[in-house]
Amino acid sequence: MYNLKLLDKAVDQFASLPGIGRKTALKFVLHLLKRNANEVDTFIQSIRDLKTHIRECSCCHNISEGELCDICNDPKRDSGIICVVENIKDILAIEATSQYNGLYHVLGGIISPMDGIGPSDLHIDSLLERIDKQPVREIIFALSATIEGDTTGYYIFKKLKNKEELVISTIAKGISVGNDLEYTDELTLGRSIVNRVRFNFNE
Amino acid sequence: MYNLKLLDKAVDQFASLPGIGRKTALKFVLHLLKRNANEVDTFIQSIRDLKTHIRECSCCHNISEGELCDICNDPKRDSGIICVVENIKDILAIEATSQYNGLYHVLGGIISPMDGIGPSDLHIDSLLERIDKQPVREIIFALSATIEGDTTGYYIFKKLKNKEELVISTIAKGISVGNDLEYTDELTLGRSIVNRVRFNFNE
Repeated sequence: MYNLKLLDKAVDQFASLPGIGRKTALKFVLHLLKRNANEVDTFIQSIRDLKTHIRECSCCHNISEGELCDICNDPKRDSGIICVVENIKDILAIEATSQYNGLYHVLGGIISPMDGIGPSDLHIDSLLERIDKQPVREIIFALSATIEGDTTGYYIFKKLKNKEELVISTIAKGISVGNDLEYTDELTLGRSIVNRVRFNFNE
Repeated sequence: MYNLKLLDKAVDQFASLPGIGRKTALKFVLHLLKRNANEVDTFIQSIRDLKTHIRECSCCHNISEGELCDICNDPKRDSGIICVVENIKDILAIEATSQYNGLYHVLGGIISPMDGIGPSDLHIDSLLERIDKQPVREIIFALSATIEGDTTGYYIFKKLKNKEELVISTIAKGISVGNDLEYTDELTLGRSIVNRVRFNFNE
C-alpha cells in the first residue's frame, strides 16, 4: 500500500484490533504521528502497564491487579451468590446497573460447536470447584439469550443437579424497559408473558 | 467506570484516537489483555518505531523515513508537476490510482475560518518557495470539492498570478464512474456538463 515499512507495520498492528480495518488503522497511525513524543510515550506506557500489571483473578477469572479481583476481595459483597457470565464486559455491564451485590464467575466464552468451543475450553471446572468449596446459595446465569447461551446454562445446570439446596436462576427475558409492545418480537413477548411477574402494589 | 486505574488509563488512551469512544476503547484493551506478551511488545514497538523514525519530508511535507520522502527522491517522477493536497491520506489515495507521476505538496489542512485555520497555518509559503526555486510547469489542486477547498485553491491561485507560464489546474468534478445520472446531485451534474470533455474516438 505504501513504501514506508515502519508505517505499514504500525498499520498492520492497529488493523489487528477487533473491528479495525486497514483504512481506520492508517487514520490512527497518522493521528499518532501528529501527536508529540510525550503523548505517544504515555500511550505506549499505558499499554505496557496494562499488560504487566493486570492479570486474571484466580477465583472468578475477572481482570485484577492482584491475586484476587476487587469484587472477590470486597467483604461487603454477598459471597453466597455467583453470577455466571460469558466475559469481563458482562461484569462491567451488570456492575453499571448497581442492582447486584454478589460475586461473579467469568466463563471466558460460551459453548458453541460451530466455533469449536466445547465445555472444556471454558472455566466451568473452576466454577464447580468454587461451588464445592464455598457455601454458595444461588447461581445466576447471565448469559446471552441465544441457543449457545441456553446450551451453556443447561450444561452447567445438569452438572449441578445433585446440589439440592442450590438455587439456580437465569436473568429474566422480556420486553425492554421503555419499549412499545408492538415493536417487540414474538419470542421475547411470549417469554415475557410466560414469565410474568406478580404485580406488587408496595414496590 | 471500573475500579482498575491501569485499565481506565489504557481505555482513556485508546479513546483519544479519532472516532473511538470508551466502549470501543475498552474492547481494544480487553483484546490486548488476551494476547500474549510478545504480541503486545510487537504492537508497542511498532508505535515506538513509527514515532522515532518517521518524520516529515522537508520538501513536500509528506511522511518520510529520511530527509526527503520516497516520492521526492524518485528520479523517475516528473518534478515539473506539483499536486497540492490537503493531507497525507490524499497522497495515498492518488498514488493508489497509478494515474499520476509528478510530485506532491501537502498543505497540512485547508483554509477554514470556522475552525480558525488561516493561510499562515498551512504549508503555503513553502509551496511558493518550491515554485520559485524549482522549474515547475504545472500545479494541480487536488482539494476537497467544498467551499473550504475552493477557497484554499483560489487563495494559492491568486498568489501565483504573476507566474505567467505556470499552468494551474484543478481535478475534474463530475459524476462518479459507474454512477447513474439520476442519482447524481444537481451541482455535480451541472459541473460535469459545464466541464464536458470532448469525445475522442481514438482513446
